[in-house]
Amino acid sequence: MIKLKLGPRTILYPMPAVIIGAEVEGKPNFMTVAWCSIASHKPPAVAMAIKQERYTLKGIRETHCFSVNVPSSDMAKVVDFCGIYSGKDRDKSKLFTIKPGDNPQIPLIDECPVNLECTTIHTLDLKSHCLVIGEITQTHVKQDCMKGKKIDPRCVDPLIYATSSETYHRLGEVVAKAYEVGKVP
Amino acid sequence: MIKLKLGPRTILYPMPAVIIGAEVEGKPNFMTVAWCSIASHKPPAVAMAIKQERYTLKGIRETHCFSVNVPSSDMAKVVDFCGIYSGKDRDKSKLFTIKPGDNPQIPLIDECPVNLECTTIHTLDLKSHCLVIGEITQTHVKQDCMKGKKIDPRCVDPLIYATSSETYHRLGEVVAKAYEVGKVP
Repeated sequence: MIKLKLGPRTILYPMPAVIIGAEVEGKPNFMTVAWCSIASHKPPAVAMAIKQERYTLKGIRETHCFSVNVPSSDMAKVVDFCGIYSGKDRDKSKLFTIKPGDNPQIPLIDECPVNLECTTIHTLDLKSHCLVIGEITQTHVKQDCMKGKKIDPRCVDPLIYATSSETYHRLGEVVAKAYEVGKVP
Repeated sequence: MIKLKLGPRTILYPMPAVIIGAEVEGKPNFMTVAWCSIASHKPPAVAMAIKQERYTLKGIRETHCFSVNVPSSDMAKVVDFCGIYSGKDRDKSKLFTIKPGDNPQIPLIDECPVNLECTTIHTLDLKSHCLVIGEITQTHVKQDCMKGKKIDPRCVDPLIYATSSETYHRLGEVVAKAYEVGKVP
């Protein structure tokens, strides 16, 4: 396969487009991140990279807690808005129906079908970004998206961010069942 | 919106399904991970969570370098195989066409349209998993997937992992253009 070398680039497919919520100076604020994943199973934890100068990071450093909200694809416009503008300049506390988590200092976006409540357990300061590791203390899922004990990903209908092309996508068709299709090589 | 509380769960949508490559005891080995993201822009870096007992982690600890390989959706079977079986028990060095990176100790999967070469710069030991932070030192992209200076995500055709339902998906249709659709709230 003919390949080009692009030099060191932050290229990975797919990326999520999730909204991080935190109280900053006593008011709920929200920012979009694509650099967010799971960090461990025990403790259940997320890892996310946030630019050092971000307003939401200030709130996370103050309160040591935050939410990860998974939006549906019909929320692309507000997700993009929360990625473009800073809470320093725009009041984002009126964009959503906000419900408090089990931890009342964590603002959850009711419109998002999945919300994680997180408490910061580690921060790793890299040059441009702070990697925040948060223990997941509660998971909220839209009842309609539960199929028995499993979550139906087509009901969650998550927004997917594609880097380089800078496009938001929907989740596509099922290709295979994991832990099954590869049992025999 | 009516929601259920599931307790602390490692739920996030979407997740990638990428293959990590590393030399273990002098031989290339590969494992599938879904818990992988970008950690920072400067330095360009990835963060990924690997179970403490994984064979590939042993190689990363020995060599301090690894590859992140983004498979296309037609590779679901081999991706799943690399997630199910350990390199302790199965020789995975013959599953792919392996090309050395600029760092000859990093095995790259030629069949994957995107490959990152990484050098470990931090490890964070959580209980079940080790969070490995790797500086990206080179990016290889299939030439056919370049549209000018941008990468066409439909050509990469990345495999997407949906947790809970445990299904692999393709990337779906474009919903909106990022940094555009949200300019006006």
